[in-house]
Amino acid sequence: MNAASRPLAVSLGDPAGVGPELIAHAWSLRERERLPPFAVIGGARLLAGAAGSRGLDVPIEPIASLDEAVGVFGRALPVLGTLDGIWRPGEPDSEGAALAFASLKAATNLAVEGKAAGIVTGPIAKARLAEVGFHFPGQTEFVAHACGVPAQDAVMMLAGPSLRAVPLTVHVPLAKVAGLLSVDLIRRRARIIAEALRRDFGVAAPRLAIAGLNPHAGENGRMGDEELRVIGPAVETLRAEGIDASGPHPADALFAPHARIGYDAALCMYHDQALIPLKTLDFDLGVNITLGLPIVRTSPDHGTAFSIAGTGRASAGATIAAIRMAGECAARRAA
Amino acid sequence: MNAASRPLAVSLGDPAGVGPELIAHAWSLRERERLPPFAVIGGARLLAGAAGSRGLDVPIEPIASLDEAVGVFGRALPVLGTLDGIWRPGEPDSEGAALAFASLKAATNLAVEGKAAGIVTGPIAKARLAEVGFHFPGQTEFVAHACGVPAQDAVMMLAGPSLRAVPLTVHVPLAKVAGLLSVDLIRRRARIIAEALRRDFGVAAPRLAIAGLNPHAGENGRMGDEELRVIGPAVETLRAEGIDASGPHPADALFAPHARIGYDAALCMYHDQALIPLKTLDFDLGVNITLGLPIVRTSPDHGTAFSIAGTGRASAGATIAAIRMAGECAARRAA
Repeated sequence: MNAASRPLAVSLGDPAGVGPELIAHAWSLRERERLPPFAVIGGARLLAGAAGSRGLDVPIEPIASLDEAVGVFGRALPVLGTLDGIWRPGEPDSEGAALAFASLKAATNLAVEGKAAGIVTGPIAKARLAEVGFHFPGQTEFVAHACGVPAQDAVMMLAGPSLRAVPLTVHVPLAKVAGLLSVDLIRRRARIIAEALRRDFGVAAPRLAIAGLNPHAGENGRMGDEELRVIGPAVETLRAEGIDASGPHPADALFAPHARIGYDAALCMYHDQALIPLKTLDFDLGVNITLGLPIVRTSPDHGTAFSIAGTGRASAGATIAAIRMAGECAARRAA
Repeated sequence: MNAASRPLAVSLGDPAGVGPELIAHAWSLRERERLPPFAVIGGARLLAGAAGSRGLDVPIEPIASLDEAVGVFGRALPVLGTLDGIWRPGEPDSEGAALAFASLKAATNLAVEGKAAGIVTGPIAKARLAEVGFHFPGQTEFVAHACGVPAQDAVMMLAGPSLRAVPLTVHVPLAKVAGLLSVDLIRRRARIIAEALRRDFGVAAPRLAIAGLNPHAGENGRMGDEELRVIGPAVETLRAEGIDASGPHPADALFAPHARIGYDAALCMYHDQALIPLKTLDFDLGVNITLGLPIVRTSPDHGTAFSIAGTGRASAGATIAAIRMAGECAARRAA
């Protein structure tokens, strides 16, 4: 089977969160949004309940094997396997967490085995998953492990219609960020980003903008020296090896409209340096894509949103964008 | 003379930068942009040169006293005093820096004496000004000193059409930010912001959103404890004294459209936390306004831009916005 005809595998996410309802919603808009075929791994009964809470008429069709998904997708939401649970929005429990974990594991395996064109993972609650034997900081690390890739080479990129941004450091206290920067880390990440822009996004000559850490990118050492000691030298070595990297750029101006046309992705030094502009520009449409893996993996860039699950208030925009992006990246890899 | 009829005093900024041309440009759009009357302090000859470089026909009319400005403003750009220099765009020198300093001093004095309704300061080059005896970190501190206000109580707010944001710390290395936060500093700044929103912006019941420092606002201490130790307690004490403060908010989501409707100003912990969203949203329209002073002072939120001075490429949007905002704030204080 060629890659373009393989379906995506979508994991449920925590069943008490907004994951299932947003998957059902995305399926209902498959034609208007030109979504590639996908199957959900498990959760037939709870997907039906979740769809109903949004007033959606979503026929669910169990499939016995992923290769049935493409044929079913036009008429019904294909659901693979018998994993299921009770739909209790806003009431997370360990049974639901176990279901989320099992769905994630099965979806990942389908992609690793080449049966799925890629995976889209629904939002999970990490604290809950830890209770059922999930010992990874997040889904990204789990997927990397399943692919045999070191966690540090599985790179989280946030992508919206206006911006692609990669945070070099992620879930660490801000005060620790400066101490975590190194020429080697920046270089390693930048190489992975450049390669992914070519392979997954079809950018023939990727341009990377590398942000400074300090106000005004340190103003030549007057407000911090990480630009002089670390970031600047990293940019130089990247350029020397033929990667079109620029910077360190003052971060405040890097995301203005006229600046964004100058690069294909921004490499940021810390979580909020990447996430503030992404969420400011593309709040409901941000996709989390893991670069550097042998499989395609995307995820909507939001959490379980337990407090609004089942109310119909959660936007399906990011889920739709994540499914579409996974399909596009998979098609480029297959081309 | 009542406040509404007093003109604003505008300082030139560095004459080799974009300041003079943008002032002339703003005057040329005074009717369409409904700008309040203003006079420039010095620089008649160089304003004429700067206006010519943008193809603008701007008659310059010297005035002997600021109270002539309102009568002149409709037909010509009023220029007070004989301070002047040669217009050499992109070639800063100490003569130009001395002119910029003298213009700033004279404009500030006019406002302190109550002759000007407020001041709008053009962009300067701090390193150059230091060569001519200007011993302040920036214009804000100079103006505060001239007003007899401690520098720490002169609060820089960045304001655009989409967002008002105040950075609690400014030109310090990012690694030092965490150590500079204190309950007292946050409380003191928040009080000044709330009072300024009432007095200068006409917000009867100001709502302040206070940002966290760490990713996800620390996630209950898992990624940094400044929210638990400092920012959270500061929010509590502010609320106890009747200020409508909320937070600490995860910074990444704080500037999304649906979040911004929930507050009148955001108090941010560091420079780029405030400046990234401001410049991402309102790049060419950001105004720097100093809160907590007895006089009204605004400035366009950009630098001298020596490299494009005289080319016609600099946008007058922020200068126009700064002049309009100064006029509006002065009118509210006078009402």
